Amino acid sequence: MTSAAADRPVDDLLVGVLGGAGPLGRGLALRLAAAGQRVLLGDADAERARALAAEVAGLASAAGGGEGSVQGGADADVAGAADLVVVAVPFAEHAGTLGGLAEALAGKVVVDAVVPVGTDDLGTYLVDVEEGSAAQQAAALLPDSAVVGAFHTVPVAALADLARPTVDADVLVAGDDAAAAATAQALAGRLPGMRGVYAGPLRNARHLEAMAVVLGSVDERYGAAAGLRVTDV
Amino acid sequence: MTSAAADRPVDDLLVGVLGGAGPLGRGLALRLAAAGQRVLLGDADAERARALAAEVAGLASAAGGGEGSVQGGADADVAGAADLVVVAVPFAEHAGTLGGLAEALAGKVVVDAVVPVGTDDLGTYLVDVEEGSAAQQAAALLPDSAVVGAFHTVPVAALADLARPTVDADVLVAGDDAAAAATAQALAGRLPGMRGVYAGPLRNARHLEAMAVVLGSVDERYGAAAGLRVTDV
Repeated sequence: MTSAAADRPVDDLLVGVLGGAGPLGRGLALRLAAAGQRVLLGDADAERARALAAEVAGLASAAGGGEGSVQGGADADVAGAADLVVVAVPFAEHAGTLGGLAEALAGKVVVDAVVPVGTDDLGTYLVDVEEGSAAQQAAALLPDSAVVGAFHTVPVAALADLARPTVDADVLVAGDDAAAAATAQALAGRLPGMRGVYAGPLRNARHLEAMAVVLGSVDERYGAAAGLRVTDV
Repeated sequence: MTSAAADRPVDDLLVGVLGGAGPLGRGLALRLAAAGQRVLLGDADAERARALAAEVAGLASAAGGGEGSVQGGADADVAGAADLVVVAVPFAEHAGTLGGLAEALAGKVVVDAVVPVGTDDLGTYLVDVEEGSAAQQAAALLPDSAVVGAFHTVPVAALADLARPTVDADVLVAGDDAAAAATAQALAGRLPGMRGVYAGPLRNARHLEAMAVVLGSVDERYGAAAGLRVTDV
C-alpha cells in the first residue's frame, strides 16, 4: 500500500512516537523536536506522556529547536492524530499496543524500531518472533499501514545528549513499500549527523533488530555508545 | 579452549584460507599477502589451488607485498599446515569440508566467514542453520578448535581491487574464546584501512552473517560495495 504521508514533505508531518517514555522513544522525540519537527509523544499513561512531553519540549527549545513542538498523549490518541508513527515500545508491549491501533494507523507510515531481546548469563540475546521480526509482527497487526523497520541501531545514549550537536550513525531502513521507506529515510535525515540508508525488504528488519544486540555487546566491551555507518554509499 | 596460535604475534602466523577460490577467500588471501602475511590458499582441488595461489602471489607482489607469500594446496593439507585458518567456502560445502578436519584443526584458531544464504523472488535471504549460525556449526564440528565468526561484512569487490590502497570497513568478530577473538581482530588489522572490533559471544555470529545479507541489499540499491564502520569505538 501507499500511504498519504509518504507523499508529503517529511518536515510537514506530525510525527507520533509510541513508547515515548523509553530511552529510544524519548531520544528520538527530543532530537526530532530540536530539529524543528512537530512531535506527539505517546505513552500508555496519558498524564505521564504530557509531563514528559513538556520536559522534552523544554530541552529541545533550550537547544534551539524553535519551530518544533512536543505534545503528549495516550498512545491510541497519538496514533490517531499523527501523520507518521514511530513505534518504540518495549517488545513485551508491542503486540498489545499495536493490536488495538489498526484502524487509527490505517493509511499511515509506521516505523517500527522495536528490538525483541531477552537477557541471560551471556548477556542480551535476540528473542524469536513468530512473524520473523518485531517489524513483521507490526505489519501483520496493521494490514492497512505501510510498515518499515528502522532506528534499531541508533546509539540511544548519544541521542539523549544534546551537548553532542550531531549523532554519528546511519539509520538502516528495511521495508517493502518504497514510498514509506523513502519517508523513513528522509525522517532519519532530519536528525543532525544521521542519514537514512535503504537496507532491503521488510524481512531484513530481523537483521537490523539483531544488530542492536551486536551493538549492545560492542557498548559493553568498549564502554561506547556505538552506531553504524555504511561505507561506499 | 585457548589455542597456541592465539599466543603468537599475528604477523608470524601462517594463515590458511579454505575456499580460497571464492571471491571472499581469494580477496582475503590477496590482501593478506599484499600486507606481508604468509598465506596458504586452499581448495577442494589441489591443482586449482596451486594455480590460483601463483596468480594471487603475483598480484600481491606487484602491489608491493614483498614479504608475504602464497602457496596453494588441498583444503585438508592447508588445514594441517596452517597456524590459523579462515573458512570461506560456500555454505553448501561448509559442513562437508569441516567435518573431516577436526583433527587437523585441533588447537588452532578457526575464523569462520561463511554466510548461509539462499535466493528467491525478493533477493537473497539468510538460511536457517540448526546450530544457530555457520560459525556455531563450525564450533560443533571442531570441538578442539577456537572458533570465531568474522569477515562476513567485508566488501568483497573492494577487497579484490588493489587499486584501492585501503578498504573502508571494520571487521566485526564474534567469539567465546577471548584470545582467539583478539587474534582475529589483529589479523583484520593487518588489512589496510580495516580494523577488528569485538562484537560479542559466538552466538552473535548469526547476526554478523545476517548483516552480509543486508549489505547485499544495500549494494543492489546503491550500486555499491558497502561495508560497515562502528562509530564511537
